Amino acid sequence: MNDGAGNAYRSVAVVGAGVIGVSWTALFLGHGLRVTVNDPRPDVEDVVRAGLDEIAPTMRELGLPIAGAAARTEALRFEPRLAAAVAGADVVQENGPELLGVKQELWAVIEEAAPPHALLLSSSSGIPATAMAEHMREPERLLIGHSFNPPHLVPLVEIVPGRHTDPAVVERAGRFYRGLGKRPQVLTKEIPGFVANRLQAALFREAIYLVTEGVVTEQELDDIVTASIGMRWAAAGPFRTFHLGGGPGGLPAFFRHLGRALEEWWGQSGTPHLDGPTVALLNEQAQHFGGSVEELAAERDAAQIAVMRALGEIPGPAREEENERFR
Amino acid sequence: MNDGAGNAYRSVAVVGAGVIGVSWTALFLGHGLRVTVNDPRPDVEDVVRAGLDEIAPTMRELGLPIAGAAARTEALRFEPRLAAAVAGADVVQENGPELLGVKQELWAVIEEAAPPHALLLSSSSGIPATAMAEHMREPERLLIGHSFNPPHLVPLVEIVPGRHTDPAVVERAGRFYRGLGKRPQVLTKEIPGFVANRLQAALFREAIYLVTEGVVTEQELDDIVTASIGMRWAAAGPFRTFHLGGGPGGLPAFFRHLGRALEEWWGQSGTPHLDGPTVALLNEQAQHFGGSVEELAAERDAAQIAVMRALGEIPGPAREEENERFR
Repeated sequence: MNDGAGNAYRSVAVVGAGVIGVSWTALFLGHGLRVTVNDPRPDVEDVVRAGLDEIAPTMRELGLPIAGAAARTEALRFEPRLAAAVAGADVVQENGPELLGVKQELWAVIEEAAPPHALLLSSSSGIPATAMAEHMREPERLLIGHSFNPPHLVPLVEIVPGRHTDPAVVERAGRFYRGLGKRPQVLTKEIPGFVANRLQAALFREAIYLVTEGVVTEQELDDIVTASIGMRWAAAGPFRTFHLGGGPGGLPAFFRHLGRALEEWWGQSGTPHLDGPTVALLNEQAQHFGGSVEELAAERDAAQIAVMRALGEIPGPAREEENERFR
Repeated sequence: MNDGAGNAYRSVAVVGAGVIGVSWTALFLGHGLRVTVNDPRPDVEDVVRAGLDEIAPTMRELGLPIAGAAARTEALRFEPRLAAAVAGADVVQENGPELLGVKQELWAVIEEAAPPHALLLSSSSGIPATAMAEHMREPERLLIGHSFNPPHLVPLVEIVPGRHTDPAVVERAGRFYRGLGKRPQVLTKEIPGFVANRLQAALFREAIYLVTEGVVTEQELDDIVTASIGMRWAAAGPFRTFHLGGGPGGLPAFFRHLGRALEEWWGQSGTPHLDGPTVALLNEQAQHFGGSVEELAAERDAAQIAVMRALGEIPGPAREEENERFR
């Protein structure tokens, strides 16, 4: 893969092969990159191959079939020794446990073993690059490349540089992710949870309040969201939505007319906590979504792919002849 | 229009012809209903016709062309006297000012003048039916039918019965809205702002915080939402999303793994207020969305229609020959 600015990418090391690591692996393979997976668990190869099999139909839909690549040993390798895994990598995408000490140890090893040109990217959803790079010799090389889950499907990647990250590296990371068809967004400040997770956490807290108050069930709340906010925010984000909600006067008119109502709702927002009874109630209702997790996930992915296709995020329907090659 | 349970609808009175009233008028006309518009402003007919002209292309896209209907005087009438406007109505959809006293006066008149079988629906986004019906002889007839804006496009209608509303009326209102292709949802409790607005207000507050903190701009935040949360919640609501985020273990596994992170983000959520400097900063950034409100609205509507079509909410592309009739 070439990023259009003279940087060629052939080989990625995926460090940590949980759900996120497997998803990144699928995305990289789908774009013709070689992937070396590093994970200490003894059954890593079985786990990753099973995960890739599960993702394969979605990748076909996205026009990025991986079945062939995953079968070729030169495209997908497993290497339990971290230093050896990253030795030939153009990119390291790290998805280790969310523990500061563990991350710091991983990056100290990676920094020594990876080639000097390698892009060093962490999937961390909460630990800032500045903290993670504290024991690195060259902290300017490290940054966060955090996908909204799962990376093989959702376009967003939040790029969060640390205090010492080199702006040129930030630029390169953006080009790399764009080359994979993603929509990276650089955050200007390190903030816990970054932007997307903080936003969904804020809405989810009010959602939990409304369910625990008995205003609606989880299923009803989900139906309300898909029939309103969801399809709206797929088309235009919250600021643009309220800007247009203000009519010809835009956002200023919106605040004049509805600012007071907003403040009022904020004042009455719920502040539930995830204590035992709350979690028990929420878990109980989730039993009634009408399908296994696998069935519901397949349903959601199909719907999301249809939405992405409608928005021009991915090309038209996968062609049969293309898919045939990998069946 | 027939609701499939023996109730036929021919005529709707739209009380209050602001943006919401005009949008309901378009939806009703698009489904072949006769509409009588009631509004005290002297230029109401010009305002409504201009609004309908603006909505017409979207209605064509939705397969519900209104240009012909809006031109026929028997399909669209204007009646400045409230009692006369509702006298022959099968349904009253009220969109008056959000002032309790005004609403109570309107409903006292409507109750006397409308036929006994008429469905009495208020678009209020904040005043509960119980309060609005306080001076009615038959409060059991009144309920909220609150659309996510604009009703001609967005599927959600929140149905909120008051304390005295007859369950049979709630059932009829649901059938009526479903007959118009909407996705009504009945709330079990009266709560200010109802569900959809409370949810979007909660997320918007955090969005304002992130922009005022300088983490991202409004444009960047909107891009983050459309590339992640938006397209995801168009396909599956927040509870289902986290249920699937938990992997095979579902929501219980999600709370075990990420409950602590959620609580942490909640603890650090911003609590901005809409004071002068905040609103000034937010308004300034909204100047840079790269288009007039009209252009951006057309863009958003086109994207949203594409999303709705992808999700099977509306039929395939409008056929040319159908549209020709009304050009």
